Amino acid sequence: MSRAGENEIVQLLRKRFGGSGVALAKGIGDDAAVIRTRGTREFWLLTTDLLLENVHFRQDWITARQLGQKALAVNLSDIAAMGGKPRHYVVALGIPAELGERWITQLYERMARLAKRYQVSLIGGDLSRSLSGIHISLTVLGESRKRRVVYRSGGKPGDHLYVTGLLGKSAAGLALLKSGKKRGGTSAERAALKAHLEPEPRCEVGLWLAEQELASAMMDLSDGLSADLPRMCRESQTGAEVWGFRLPVFPASTAWSCDPLAFALNGGEDYELLFAVPQQKAAALEKSYPSRFPPITAIGRLTKGTGVSWVPAPGKTSRLLPARGFDHFRAAFFSWADLMVNSRS
Amino acid sequence: MSRAGENEIVQLLRKRFGGSGVALAKGIGDDAAVIRTRGTREFWLLTTDLLLENVHFRQDWITARQLGQKALAVNLSDIAAMGGKPRHYVVALGIPAELGERWITQLYERMARLAKRYQVSLIGGDLSRSLSGIHISLTVLGESRKRRVVYRSGGKPGDHLYVTGLLGKSAAGLALLKSGKKRGGTSAERAALKAHLEPEPRCEVGLWLAEQELASAMMDLSDGLSADLPRMCRESQTGAEVWGFRLPVFPASTAWSCDPLAFALNGGEDYELLFAVPQQKAAALEKSYPSRFPPITAIGRLTKGTGVSWVPAPGKTSRLLPARGFDHFRAAFFSWADLMVNSRS
Repeated sequence: MSRAGENEIVQLLRKRFGGSGVALAKGIGDDAAVIRTRGTREFWLLTTDLLLENVHFRQDWITARQLGQKALAVNLSDIAAMGGKPRHYVVALGIPAELGERWITQLYERMARLAKRYQVSLIGGDLSRSLSGIHISLTVLGESRKRRVVYRSGGKPGDHLYVTGLLGKSAAGLALLKSGKKRGGTSAERAALKAHLEPEPRCEVGLWLAEQELASAMMDLSDGLSADLPRMCRESQTGAEVWGFRLPVFPASTAWSCDPLAFALNGGEDYELLFAVPQQKAAALEKSYPSRFPPITAIGRLTKGTGVSWVPAPGKTSRLLPARGFDHFRAAFFSWADLMVNSRS
Repeated sequence: MSRAGENEIVQLLRKRFGGSGVALAKGIGDDAAVIRTRGTREFWLLTTDLLLENVHFRQDWITARQLGQKALAVNLSDIAAMGGKPRHYVVALGIPAELGERWITQLYERMARLAKRYQVSLIGGDLSRSLSGIHISLTVLGESRKRRVVYRSGGKPGDHLYVTGLLGKSAAGLALLKSGKKRGGTSAERAALKAHLEPEPRCEVGLWLAEQELASAMMDLSDGLSADLPRMCRESQTGAEVWGFRLPVFPASTAWSCDPLAFALNGGEDYELLFAVPQQKAAALEKSYPSRFPPITAIGRLTKGTGVSWVPAPGKTSRLLPARGFDHFRAAFFSWADLMVNSRS
């Protein structure tokens, strides 16, 4: 789970403090770090994600079980986004005194259920009392299939862009919660709440795309397409065009006054995969993509140059797509200019 | 960093949710998880530790730099305690809005300095605004030399027990802070504050002991000898006797009304290594132990049976040593009985 502001700080910290060297195929800046190992064909993948009460979730909105699902899912999503297979996880958990054994057991139970589905094993952790809300950070260790890691940086102009699932569904769920609706009355409401509170990582899709060597670049959508796609473009040194008329939005959210298109572009926490496929492989992808997987949609392509342009309808003039993705960090307090000066010192 | 109450919960969670299988040489319950890898002679070691504001530290007592040192040191200590070599780390950090770029840079700078000394590289992280104090959890990935991992469980009756450094120094530093003394006036005070605020992990010692195949069991002292030694005994299925007259205490703390012996036994956060050495190797250890390393002291031996007995002076009658180690979790709120019932269901 990366976020625009946080990502920039992390990039700057990387420049000053980040690791390098022969053991490290790729460090900070992608969805997970990639570690070269001696004597094996595989790489190890390592990712960590933090969820804090009242920043990433509210206790009155999410159950222990849902939090367990979400905390592990967002980490698994990072491994999926590299085309890797998650193997092990550790949990660092701080919990306030009012949450007892029942709560903690439910949290771990749900994590264990999700872990079992993807054959990931809990191998350690740290547990502490907290005087200030719930803190949960997970670290997942995964591995690549052979050395088939899919970076954000592998895209080329002309590659087709795809996403899994629907975009903006999680944000539509968040909108329901903000309006005081904790339980869905309709199936659309329930689906939106589920997408927000207990997202499903796209582990099989990511792994399959890497195994089949179909994706040239991949990442997960944590901040919204308008914030995440420019990151892939920057890493791949390309531009992109997005076919607005093809975007798989969640139209049902209009029932509770959401703008499905705005949410698809700028809503965060979808944890769907965004990936690029070389033009000559696109037909093979669409033919061989397993029907048991979540649907994928072609939403545009990578281009020469820079910037993301928006094509509202076939043949219509494109315009630049501004990045308005979810960014809880940039908005907050950080002095970018200062940090950038420091990072160059 | 393990703590008595937390450790018991983690053990119980392990029984219900913990991983197993061929890939895992050893999971939850030791200082770090041990992961078997295909095709290599080494094991991977994985550990995570969480520090929360007002639980593990107070912002008015510790600087950003010291917190950076401590957060990484306690994780490196876990790898050292397995006889491993730390390789990579990731940082999950939540910080309140009032802490800006200067604070965060100082934190990372000090981590980087410590990391450089032990050739560990920062490879990723997650950064978030926090509405509830500082949250910092690190995960360190290390590796064994060949397959020479030292578990808590390898001790045998008759093995000699050693510790590195002095015990109770960190608790003496904490006592100073609690009394309002944030800066040491004497060198002893400064040493105690340093031990508490910026502990030094015993990386070289742990790795050397494993390489030389001298230690049969090892762990780091995070909760005090009286709490930690029984854990080694339980895992090794032994008892132990501790020679009170040999314990390397920190006598200078009497100057600020501490009881050096009580602190050595029950004070936490020393992050010294406790290790067992087969009787026939003890002479070789004492002869070959590098003089550049922190001093080690023989403090007793493992015995048949159970329980830790205390020998106050040579030839004196021993008595049982009660576990009174630092335990911020057990004291708090947890219903052990309930969790144990659940864990057996």
